[in-house]
Amino acid sequence: MTTAGRRPLILNAGINSTGYSAKSWRAEGRPWDRFLDYDHYLEAAEIAHSGALDALFISDHPALQRDNTSRPIHSFDPLILFSALAANVPDIGFLLTASTGYNSPYNLARRLATLDHISGGRVVWNAVTSFNPDVAANFGRDSLPDRVERYRRASEFITVVKQLWSSWDARAEGFPRADGALWDDASARRIAHDGEFFHVQGPLNVPPGPQGYPLIAQAGGSEQGIDFAGRHADLIYAPLLSIGAARGYTSDVRERALAHGRDPQSIRFVPGLVPVIAETKAQARTLHERLNGHDGEESLIGALVRRLSPALDGLAAHDVVDPERLAPVPGQRGPVGFTRAFYDVARSERITLRELARRSEGGHRLVIGTPDDVVADLLEWWDTGVVDGFTLQLPVLPDDLRLFVDEVVPRLVRAGARLDHYPQRTLRERFDLPLAENTPQLT
Amino acid sequence: MTTAGRRPLILNAGINSTGYSAKSWRAEGRPWDRFLDYDHYLEAAEIAHSGALDALFISDHPALQRDNTSRPIHSFDPLILFSALAANVPDIGFLLTASTGYNSPYNLARRLATLDHISGGRVVWNAVTSFNPDVAANFGRDSLPDRVERYRRASEFITVVKQLWSSWDARAEGFPRADGALWDDASARRIAHDGEFFHVQGPLNVPPGPQGYPLIAQAGGSEQGIDFAGRHADLIYAPLLSIGAARGYTSDVRERALAHGRDPQSIRFVPGLVPVIAETKAQARTLHERLNGHDGEESLIGALVRRLSPALDGLAAHDVVDPERLAPVPGQRGPVGFTRAFYDVARSERITLRELARRSEGGHRLVIGTPDDVVADLLEWWDTGVVDGFTLQLPVLPDDLRLFVDEVVPRLVRAGARLDHYPQRTLRERFDLPLAENTPQLT
Repeated sequence: MTTAGRRPLILNAGINSTGYSAKSWRAEGRPWDRFLDYDHYLEAAEIAHSGALDALFISDHPALQRDNTSRPIHSFDPLILFSALAANVPDIGFLLTASTGYNSPYNLARRLATLDHISGGRVVWNAVTSFNPDVAANFGRDSLPDRVERYRRASEFITVVKQLWSSWDARAEGFPRADGALWDDASARRIAHDGEFFHVQGPLNVPPGPQGYPLIAQAGGSEQGIDFAGRHADLIYAPLLSIGAARGYTSDVRERALAHGRDPQSIRFVPGLVPVIAETKAQARTLHERLNGHDGEESLIGALVRRLSPALDGLAAHDVVDPERLAPVPGQRGPVGFTRAFYDVARSERITLRELARRSEGGHRLVIGTPDDVVADLLEWWDTGVVDGFTLQLPVLPDDLRLFVDEVVPRLVRAGARLDHYPQRTLRERFDLPLAENTPQLT
Repeated sequence: MTTAGRRPLILNAGINSTGYSAKSWRAEGRPWDRFLDYDHYLEAAEIAHSGALDALFISDHPALQRDNTSRPIHSFDPLILFSALAANVPDIGFLLTASTGYNSPYNLARRLATLDHISGGRVVWNAVTSFNPDVAANFGRDSLPDRVERYRRASEFITVVKQLWSSWDARAEGFPRADGALWDDASARRIAHDGEFFHVQGPLNVPPGPQGYPLIAQAGGSEQGIDFAGRHADLIYAPLLSIGAARGYTSDVRERALAHGRDPQSIRFVPGLVPVIAETKAQARTLHERLNGHDGEESLIGALVRRLSPALDGLAAHDVVDPERLAPVPGQRGPVGFTRAFYDVARSERITLRELARRSEGGHRLVIGTPDDVVADLLEWWDTGVVDGFTLQLPVLPDDLRLFVDEVVPRLVRAGARLDHYPQRTLRERFDLPLAENTPQLT
């Protein structure tokens, strides 16, 4: 607990590739191919640990990205990279992305449980359904299944995984028995799952670990995604671009949680946050333009208009954006979360096109300014109690993470919003999320 | 090279569970549940590293074993455990088992390639087809596919994996291009594999690492397995119970390699070896009995007869075993390698039932005696040049590995058969196995 008697503000940090900025691979003074160097990730992890950040995050698609000029994202497999980092860096958690579309429940349950043991209870599984057709083509599928099928499969997958995670109680009372038996059919139960997508006998060959089993994270923004998050997620990192939008989204998800019989307070919201920090606000704004390859605000605004075209066509920089221009399109194939975030912010406040171009980066919320500006922004959000923390996406790794840990984190600690150490052993304890008594059954 | 100008004797060490002995989980002075403790594996790995052993080995089945009184084997997932150990222990290799039956080529190729990068080129993939029906039932299969189908799938799997491993040359000349492109369709090629079992587009999102790509290990003993090993394996750890049997087996495999267009000398044979070491030979023999829960040689022999029944029924301890009693049964479902090893040893020498009971443990070759006895045995094999080294299976971990490293390894170094350090960076260099120029095509 903080001095204010609240749970500390959660801060996770994304460590994909060379940073969150598309041009981060070309940052001066750093090798372009550091995304293939383990020591690069280790350095980022150690910086994050020195600031007592809560967890490292890696998003993932098992395919080579189409854009061959942007930072080379999604190369090293997150399971492998995080297993290595867990052996080198103590305390910090690992928010690990793995697809329910392209793994099998037994292997993934076992791999996550193994890492949860080895790390001492520091794993969060970010369960994604994968919307990328190139991924489907790497796994024998001619086309991407539709969103409804993807989420139906995801929900069955996660239910099977949780059943497997609690299928073998290796330290059950009375074991090992005097006759030398390490388990029996009661302490190691078959789950005998026979569902639409999966047929899994069990039990799992790895018993529960220090935090029981891993936490579940989700970012769903579609109707299916929000329902899925309400049903399964412990941690949600959906993009939320204003406090008003965050209020609406978190309340929607908590309602779904309640409808699924869960405690609506048992979910932690940690939306994405992209800090662009410099010594003055003006310098930070210039840096923001340069990070995207622009030489001024006009060019920055033009890029946003082109990217969302035709939604914002014809607007001037000072025009307030009519939210209906950003309303989600039914049948959208890609991820709905980022589209919805734009729509929600325009509904929750009068935002001009110029402000919108400074509000989000790669879909997540931007905060541009001095370290004090960033601290003020984070504390303003924290004071409302609407979210529990943030998932940082630093423009250039590892340098911007160093800057954040050196300049922003100590101010948050002094303000009583963060601790400068790790008081709990497992991530479940740190996030105050007790293990559910019951394993979910398929409905 | 050794002082004798030869490649040093290869020594790998199995580190499954609590040791190779079925009763190893109950060893005095060690917690029974150390198979769930990362530090247990780390201690074993560090001992092996202190003896400059070449690689650690973990066999695997993704299922809880049926026998609930034997050491709890195959719990932690090898990919995860070895990724953590690679971050903590330098130099030593990782001989990692993963099934071609229950993984997808893209994920596995990517995970192994990632570990190969992170470890600096220290990965060997032990490609197994999995013969355990409980595994099939954990992955949605009602029954185990037959051996012919399993090996057909394995061969297609491994060919796809090798194509993926060489599909993206991230450091191709001219990249990154002046226009900012990190690759093009020539340096990152689709493999567009469309086969019987797999349909994979590619390219892989991880380029080749320090040793190009991982080595391949195999243990096949069946006709299909030997052909597969001759076609794909760099390292073979099949059980070989006598020098004569080893001569026959290695020459069979090299013939198959030649038939598949490979250099027959590009395969390293490292059969299993179970050392049971004590201060005197008599004490070592008693220890061997006790490790199996027997109180004398008679009980030990009786157990072998029961295990192979009816093959050896009615034989007395001093009777020479007629090899025809041990001839493989057509249509055998389980692994053929261990059965074949018994057959081959009885064909290659006149062996009594008593000697046979002291010749193998869990299928692999036993050597029972003082450290000097073990050294003499290893040097005798090494002098023949028939095999390249051994895959050690120590009865109780980590203690028997410590004993081996302290008492046997220094004598082998003094005899000029081993080095006491790691002169090469990658395992491929250490085993003198140049990367093939061409990626195999499906035939």
